[in-house]
Amino acid sequence: MNTIIVKTPVTRHLGELFSKNGLSKKTVVLFDENTRNLFGSELLDLLTEQGFQWLDLVVPAKETSKSFNTANKLYGKMILADVDRSWNLLAVGGGVVGDLGGFIAASYYRGIPIIQLPTTLLAMTDSSIGGKVAINHPLGKNLIGFFHLPRLVLIDPAYLKTLPMREIHAGMAEVVKYGFIADRDFLFRLDRHFSEIIALEEPFVTDAIRRSAEIKSDVVEKDFREESGLRATLNFGHTFAHGLEKLADYRYLRHGEAVTIGMVCALSLSHGLGYLNREELDQGVRILRKFRFPHGLVQRRFLGESSESLLEYMLSDKKKLDRKLRFVLLKSLGSAFLLEETVEDHHVLKAITEAKELFKKALAC
Amino acid sequence: MNTIIVKTPVTRHLGELFSKNGLSKKTVVLFDENTRNLFGSELLDLLTEQGFQWLDLVVPAKETSKSFNTANKLYGKMILADVDRSWNLLAVGGGVVGDLGGFIAASYYRGIPIIQLPTTLLAMTDSSIGGKVAINHPLGKNLIGFFHLPRLVLIDPAYLKTLPMREIHAGMAEVVKYGFIADRDFLFRLDRHFSEIIALEEPFVTDAIRRSAEIKSDVVEKDFREESGLRATLNFGHTFAHGLEKLADYRYLRHGEAVTIGMVCALSLSHGLGYLNREELDQGVRILRKFRFPHGLVQRRFLGESSESLLEYMLSDKKKLDRKLRFVLLKSLGSAFLLEETVEDHHVLKAITEAKELFKKALAC
Ligand SMILES: NC(=O)c1ccc[n+]([C@@H]2O[C@H](COP(=O)([O-])OP(=O)(O)OC[C@H]3O[C@@H](n4cnc5c(N)ncnc54)[C@H](O)[C@@H]3O)[C@@H](O)[C@H]2O)c1
Ligand SMILES: NC(=O)c1ccc[n+]([C@@H]2O[C@H](COP(=O)([O-])OP(=O)(O)OC[C@H]3O[C@@H](n4cnc5c(N)ncnc54)[C@H](O)[C@@H]3O)[C@@H](O)[C@H]2O)c1
Ligand SMILES: [Zn+2]
Ligand SMILES: [Zn+2]
Repeated sequence: MNTIIVKTPVTRHLGELFSKNGLSKKTVVLFDENTRNLFGSELLDLLTEQGFQWLDLVVPAKETSKSFNTANKLYGKMILADVDRSWNLLAVGGGVVGDLGGFIAASYYRGIPIIQLPTTLLAMTDSSIGGKVAINHPLGKNLIGFFHLPRLVLIDPAYLKTLPMREIHAGMAEVVKYGFIADRDFLFRLDRHFSEIIALEEPFVTDAIRRSAEIKSDVVEKDFREESGLRATLNFGHTFAHGLEKLADYRYLRHGEAVTIGMVCALSLSHGLGYLNREELDQGVRILRKFRFPHGLVQRRFLGESSESLLEYMLSDKKKLDRKLRFVLLKSLGSAFLLEETVEDHHVLKAITEAKELFKKALAC
Repeated sequence: MNTIIVKTPVTRHLGELFSKNGLSKKTVVLFDENTRNLFGSELLDLLTEQGFQWLDLVVPAKETSKSFNTANKLYGKMILADVDRSWNLLAVGGGVVGDLGGFIAASYYRGIPIIQLPTTLLAMTDSSIGGKVAINHPLGKNLIGFFHLPRLVLIDPAYLKTLPMREIHAGMAEVVKYGFIADRDFLFRLDRHFSEIIALEEPFVTDAIRRSAEIKSDVVEKDFREESGLRATLNFGHTFAHGLEKLADYRYLRHGEAVTIGMVCALSLSHGLGYLNREELDQGVRILRKFRFPHGLVQRRFLGESSESLLEYMLSDKKKLDRKLRFVLLKSLGSAFLLEETVEDHHVLKAITEAKELFKKALAC
């Protein structure tokens, strides 16, 4: 359903890739300020060489660019440049540019094709795949959006070379997640080749990205509308992570860092409820530790708060009358499921408390 | 594809209709100020009686409500009222409420079901059917939007009783249009029963609405994405009408009034290019005349401007390099097609000039 191409350097082949996929050579290219500075001139020159007609648009490199205001300004520029339904939109950047670009493409003239050219690890392995596009509302993240599948996802791991290390680590959380939920061999491959991957060495980094993108794409294809519970397994660790992100008011921590901590909690809950044995729990925590636990403020936020207060934040966007949390658990490393039953609060609290212990113990090693 | 129910009084059956169509009884009810005043209390009481949980929202009764600003305010109210993906949205009003409601439903939490309860003739026969939903951008009407099919369209002709006569006439333009493009018998039935329909007498008015809704729905089903040219036939008369609307800066004229004039031009062009014979041209103009030609300012606008200036306005949203207009023509009364070739300007000018003559002659009768 997603046509995903992993190739270096992918931008030399845009002309043929677009033609082969029935896309016109009239393209709105959306950047954020960083990706415009880093890759803009070269990419736009290549487009010109390859016979493209393009319009380049730039937004500030921050989460607040995913807003109605920004979208409205961009629509205006597109209208004034005579962009019509024969055009498409190429989003060059991380999840912010991808989500915003997808939102605009989904709604401009009732929809033009979106092509994703992700430049962060998170975008390559997660946000660019699956067709969820959204902007934020002042009252909540990602509330306004659509399903608008990309016509092409063009992944070139070479873009990662300029990415700050913290973004690499944050992105690795989702990569490891795919191993946990769907592919035991992959998980242990990541474990074995940790240092090569983190150093962006080939073929290890491409394997990590390709397999992640494949797993996400498979899951999405089998459960596009989130009906069977399969797509929900992509949220392994995320119920805890969202609580933590709220607790920190979305500042000082990257989503991936919250997910790493959330996965420690989810492993601990899987064990606490009797689904995952002790040995696999320890192994899981060890792998997460290897790919680096978040430190500094993030770590203090997690270890410093009471388990009760984290649970409160996890529940905070639930209705007063329906305080049910849903959890994705592991049966074994490489195999996740969505638990249908409600988990009683005391189990969740216990899992958080134990996760803190595991976290501290691992750090002490 | 659209489940269309034509029934009086339809609101007594909302509970069963929703259940039968797999819709939950949690509904955001969107009105404009007029429909809220006219039908709000009764409808909301009925919903309560039938076991619904509802949230009512009201927007000003004007075209400018189809904006990002209004949408953003409504999202906010929905978020604060804990509206989630288990809810749906019921739009009660004309095309403005229907388009705005559809836009919001398409984008809230990546999409909740939309149910249309149209209360204008235009909405019953046109805007509520077919899944096009949109808001306006300061630089152009309906530019931002999606395809989001309604789960149910609930048509109750009784709502028309409070509708101003001018809106009835404007709506009739599209009704007659369906006869022209797709159903000769229907066209002559409308002709025969003109006075009963315009007086909202049964069964004539219900027949007119039902058949119109059916034709639109059939056409949309066969060509949802506007690929084959079939859906384009719904734009019979509209290329001219849009020019006229622009010329009048969208003020002082209803869309349907512009469409009536546009259809006179399109009939004249069909004849001028040799597709429609003289007798059918005259018959077509006579029927349009019967259902009332717009008068006052609108008429003066059309008759007073040069044909060249109308053509300029028709071309004004086209690219400088690609000034091609596409026309829907009639082969005979009841059978339309989209002309693939470009029509030379002098043919268009001649058609406009002749349409003015036909218009004047018909008025003189
Ligand atoms: N749609 C989905 O399914 C989905 C899934 C997960 C996350 N998201 C969204 O993704 C967003 C986060 O994405 P992100 O983590 O990629 O953040 P981001 O887009 O903000 O990028 C992070 C930073 O890296 C910079 N950057 C991007 N590429 C670079 C490169 N190659 N070299 C140097 N710097 C570079 C960016 O300018 C930015 O400053 C959030 O808004 C989140 O809601 C969406
Ligand atoms: N989505 C589509 O396919 C499509 C097709 C055609 C038109 N449209 C859109 O529809 C809109 C025009 O729709 P409209 O003509 O229904 O206008 P409208 O929604 O503005 O309604 C016209 C007026 O009638 C009032 N009204 C509504 N129902 C009434 C009733 N039963 N009794 C008394 N007053 C009533 C309204 O409050 C308003 O003042 C435009 O925005 C146009 O772009 C959309
Ligand atoms: Zn995530
Ligand atoms: Zn129309």
